[in-house]
Amino acid sequence: MKLKVCIAILACIVLATSTATSHTRSKSLLERLGYPEDTKLLIVHADDLGMAHSINLASIKGLETGLVSSASIMIPCSWLPEIAAYARSHPEADLGLHLTLTSEWALYRWGPVLGKEQVPSLLDRDGYLYLTETEAAAHIDPKEAEAEIRAQIARARALGIQPTHLDSHMGTLYQNRALFETLFRVAHDNKLLIRVSKEWFAAAPFLPSLLSPDDVVVNSVISIEPSVTADGWSKFYVDAIKNLQPGITEMIVHLAYDDEEMKGVTFAHPDWGSAWRQRDFQFVTSDAFRKLLKDNNVKLVTWREVGKLMKKAGP
Amino acid sequence: MKLKVCIAILACIVLATSTATSHTRSKSLLERLGYPEDTKLLIVHADDLGMAHSINLASIKGLETGLVSSASIMIPCSWLPEIAAYARSHPEADLGLHLTLTSEWALYRWGPVLGKEQVPSLLDRDGYLYLTETEAAAHIDPKEAEAEIRAQIARARALGIQPTHLDSHMGTLYQNRALFETLFRVAHDNKLLIRVSKEWFAAAPFLPSLLSPDDVVVNSVISIEPSVTADGWSKFYVDAIKNLQPGITEMIVHLAYDDEEMKGVTFAHPDWGSAWRQRDFQFVTSDAFRKLLKDNNVKLVTWREVGKLMKKAGP
Repeated sequence: MKLKVCIAILACIVLATSTATSHTRSKSLLERLGYPEDTKLLIVHADDLGMAHSINLASIKGLETGLVSSASIMIPCSWLPEIAAYARSHPEADLGLHLTLTSEWALYRWGPVLGKEQVPSLLDRDGYLYLTETEAAAHIDPKEAEAEIRAQIARARALGIQPTHLDSHMGTLYQNRALFETLFRVAHDNKLLIRVSKEWFAAAPFLPSLLSPDDVVVNSVISIEPSVTADGWSKFYVDAIKNLQPGITEMIVHLAYDDEEMKGVTFAHPDWGSAWRQRDFQFVTSDAFRKLLKDNNVKLVTWREVGKLMKKAGP
Repeated sequence: MKLKVCIAILACIVLATSTATSHTRSKSLLERLGYPEDTKLLIVHADDLGMAHSINLASIKGLETGLVSSASIMIPCSWLPEIAAYARSHPEADLGLHLTLTSEWALYRWGPVLGKEQVPSLLDRDGYLYLTETEAAAHIDPKEAEAEIRAQIARARALGIQPTHLDSHMGTLYQNRALFETLFRVAHDNKLLIRVSKEWFAAAPFLPSLLSPDDVVVNSVISIEPSVTADGWSKFYVDAIKNLQPGITEMIVHLAYDDEEMKGVTFAHPDWGSAWRQRDFQFVTSDAFRKLLKDNNVKLVTWREVGKLMKKAGP
C-alpha cells in the first residue's frame, strides 16, 4: 500500500496538539510537558546533515545562532565523519538520525551502510540507494530496510553520536504500512522519538495503532513547497509562524550555502537545490526570524527536551 | 613484506625507457611505438577523479586544455556518477581507474564497493577503508583486495567508463608482493596497462617477474613532494621537464580548486591539500607549461595511445 504521506514533507498545516494514546485530548501533551495550554512550541529542524560539506557548515551555523533547535544526520553519506566530530564536541546539540534509504542526486550518490549481499532490495542497478522514495518503497523488502536502519543507528553510535530522535529522508519510511511498522519497531527498541505528525493520520489511518504511549505526535510539519518562488520565501515562513497554533509544530528546513559543491550536488534540480537551501539558511538565521518568533510568542524546543519531559511526566 | 615503492608517488627521477620483457634494451619501447630514439614522451596524469566535485571540475578543465593527457577515477567515491557522465559523453578522454583501497581524509570518508561481509579485511573499525596505505597493506587479505578491485572495474564498466589503464590510489597495491601480484593478475585478465615505473625495481626486485610481454613500464614517475614550498612549485616542474630523458615518463598531478569543499576534504592536511591542488592546477593549465613542453621537445601521450601502439607493434 502506497500512501501519500510524503505530503508531510511538503505541507503547511497547523493542527491541534495530541498525544499518542489520546489524539482527542488536544492539550494533554502541553500539559504533560508542563506548559500552559496556549503555548506555541516549535522545533526548527535542519535536515540532511552529513550529505555535503556545505550542508554541514550551514546547518552548524544555524544551530549556533540558536534559531535552529534540532537537526538530523544522514549516516550513509561521506561527510558523516565531519558532523560526527561536531556531535562529539557539542553533546548539547539536538541531533537525530535522518534515516536514509534513497540517494536522490544524479551526479553525487551513496549506497547503504550494509553491503549488497545483506540488503539487495535497497539497491538500484548502479549499486546505489534508489533515486526516489517511490522507487525505493516499491522495491524495498521491509526486513532489509530494518537491518539497514539498525546498522545506521549502530554506526552513528559507534561514531559517538547519541541521537535524540529519528526521521526519514524523503519520507521513504512513511511510504507504506510495512515501512512505518519497521520504523516504529526500530524506534521503540531504541527508545527514540520519531517525527510523526497528526496531519498524516488521514492518509495513514493505521498510524495511531502503531504508536506507543511514549511516542510524541506533533500537530503539524511546516516545510516550504516548490511552488513558493524566491520572492515569496519570507512571506511563506512569516505566514506559517503567524498562523501557528498551540502545541508542538516542527518546521523542516534545508540549510546549505549556494556554493560550487552544492550547485554540483543539486545540478539541474532547483527543488531543494542550492539556491533554495541558501534562502532557507538566510531566513532562519536572520534577525527578522528571531523577531518573528518573539512577536508571536513562539518558544523553540528540541526533541531532547520533549523526550526528557515526556519521560519525566510519565504517560 | 612491505616495500617502500610508494616512493614512486613522491620521487622525481628520470630514467631510460624499458619494456617489460627486456629492461636492458633501453630504446625498444620507443622503437616499438614508432618514435625516434630520442623522443621524450610524457603522460601528464591527474589522479583522484571522482573523489570530490572540485577535483572533477578542475581535472576536466585540465583535460580540456590538452595539457593534461590522462587521468584516473576513484570508483568508491560519491562523485563517481559526475565523472562517469563525463566519460560517457567524452569517449576520447583517456580515463583509467585509480583503484582505491584507502580513505585518507579525517572528515570525509568512503567504504569499498563490496560489503563488509565480502571484504572485512579492507575495513577499519568505523567501517571505512583504512586511512593510510600502510595500515591498509598490513590488514588487507589479498583475495579480498582482488574481489574489491574486480568489483571496482565492473562498476566502472557498468557506468559506461571504458578504462584505458589502472593505477593504485596512494600506492596501496604497490605495498607488498602479494598486492602487486593481485594487481597484475586483475590487469592482465582485463587487458589493461598499469602504472609501473622502472625506478621501483630496486625496492621491488620481484617486479620484472610479474610483468607480461604486453605490459608497459615507464622510465620514471614525476610527482611533487611535500618538501617543495609554494614558492618553489613552478621551479620543481620546470626542472623536471628540462631534465626529461627519452622514453616514457609519467607526471602525476592532483588537480582541484582551493574552494570550501576541497578545504573541508583536506582539512588540517596541507600535503596533497586544497592549496596544493590549486597550485598543480594553475601550473599544468598555464601557457608557461605549454611553452615549457614545446621548448623541451616533449610530446604528450595517453595510456590509450601507448596501449594501442603496443598492440599494433606486437611484442
